[in-house]
Amino acid sequence: MNQQELFGQIQKKRSFLCVGLDTDIQKIPQHLMDTSDPVFSFNKEIIDATAEFTVAYKPNLAFYESLGSRGIISLEKTVSYLKSKYPNIFLIADAKRGDIGNTSSLYARAFFDKQDFDAVTVAPYMGEDSVKPFMTYLDKWVILLALTSNKGAYDFQFIEDKESGEKLFETVLKKSQEWGTDENMMYVVGATKAEKLKEIREIVPNHFLLVPGVGAQGGSLQEVAKNGMNAKCGLLVNSSRGIIYASNDVDYAEKARAAAKEIQQEMEVLLKEGGLL
Amino acid sequence: MNQQELFGQIQKKRSFLCVGLDTDIQKIPQHLMDTSDPVFSFNKEIIDATAEFTVAYKPNLAFYESLGSRGIISLEKTVSYLKSKYPNIFLIADAKRGDIGNTSSLYARAFFDKQDFDAVTVAPYMGEDSVKPFMTYLDKWVILLALTSNKGAYDFQFIEDKESGEKLFETVLKKSQEWGTDENMMYVVGATKAEKLKEIREIVPNHFLLVPGVGAQGGSLQEVAKNGMNAKCGLLVNSSRGIIYASNDVDYAEKARAAAKEIQQEMEVLLKEGGLL
Repeated sequence: MNQQELFGQIQKKRSFLCVGLDTDIQKIPQHLMDTSDPVFSFNKEIIDATAEFTVAYKPNLAFYESLGSRGIISLEKTVSYLKSKYPNIFLIADAKRGDIGNTSSLYARAFFDKQDFDAVTVAPYMGEDSVKPFMTYLDKWVILLALTSNKGAYDFQFIEDKESGEKLFETVLKKSQEWGTDENMMYVVGATKAEKLKEIREIVPNHFLLVPGVGAQGGSLQEVAKNGMNAKCGLLVNSSRGIIYASNDVDYAEKARAAAKEIQQEMEVLLKEGGLL
Repeated sequence: MNQQELFGQIQKKRSFLCVGLDTDIQKIPQHLMDTSDPVFSFNKEIIDATAEFTVAYKPNLAFYESLGSRGIISLEKTVSYLKSKYPNIFLIADAKRGDIGNTSSLYARAFFDKQDFDAVTVAPYMGEDSVKPFMTYLDKWVILLALTSNKGAYDFQFIEDKESGEKLFETVLKKSQEWGTDENMMYVVGATKAEKLKEIREIVPNHFLLVPGVGAQGGSLQEVAKNGMNAKCGLLVNSSRGIIYASNDVDYAEKARAAAKEIQQEMEVLLKEGGLL
């Protein structure tokens, strides 16, 4: 999916919501545990209930890997289901990968070839050759960690460069623009650092930003939109727990739908205020 | 496995060799392609041929993930085989993971609970809460990326802090010592930066270092030992391609054994020179 198509979906659905499919086997409603693949059963119902309000889904790989190969099978089934039934929804592997060049190529093969994700989150620590192999696939995306939503973000991401005075996350934003464009790169910027979005927009005015941390982690959607929206929206705001665990009973899909719809309606207002609808 | 046990194995085998099980399906000898699980068949023969000379094995996850769930099954079989037949060999998941705290806990579950690895490589960009969940398991280890062997290492790892003057990889080494000890943390330091090992030893005198990049990537074993060895050896030197692809014919296991033995013999000399045997 290219940038224009993604923006088209945002306008059509009046939403820039990404639903995090962080499906924890220990939190799945009891009645699904008798199915042959509880994680896939859960995801399928969540997807069907929320797809109307959602432009992207983002499974975090840790949840699937924690179940071993069985979890990866559940993930593969989820991706196939999404790609066949909802081909216009943007699909992000939240994997935070990154390795030396020839190894990163294999990760790219895993996510873009073997599975049909549209994007993978990548950690920047190992630099250019760890990131570029993900950008050799047409209309596939790297989403590079820039400023994350967690407390540990303060350990290294704010270190200031002796020469330039730039903070590390700013250097990551600037340097990585030599590697790709706003047609194959996005950045992770946590909603808990929404006040930083204005400065970040000066460095990357046209790139899409993937913004986790709204809801459970405490970030505000209004703040994110105010500081981060650009002429093509430029935002994918993720919510996981607030949607997929809106209820842990038989009505979980229905409640997830209601939670997604509520965010979509807020987003519709923000898109209108931004002059994008 | 704890530090003393690892050092015991090093003395017993007169080796600090780690064999990288970076098994690429496209490079497996043709005669194995008819077996039901070529990757596992390949690994099993490589392991049996090299275990005598090896204190650690390190599958890089990318190679297995590039085959989807089938690859993860091959990996699970490899780990089970190693743990049952060679329980005293240290087993490293080269995964370069790292995510917000509750998600890193799931990665820890994946590698330490679901599978029985002794250590996982972790990327430092997201800071403390992304690393610590891996250190809650007794005698399990985090191997944190400090200074990597690739060209991209120069993009961010050498950025100097305005306040302290420290390079980023030095800050990673120092800061992370607040999170763990030399009993649950090691560091990745590329052999291509062997001249840096002396400075690194001043910051982390007692920690084990995992050193990739000897051989195919051009690093020298002698340089690594000269600058990096400590009183408990403190080094695991990885070789992948030079061993597992020493031949791509029916004699591949035999040639892998010869290649591993050659390195072990070099290491025995270096251990003696270091007064450790």
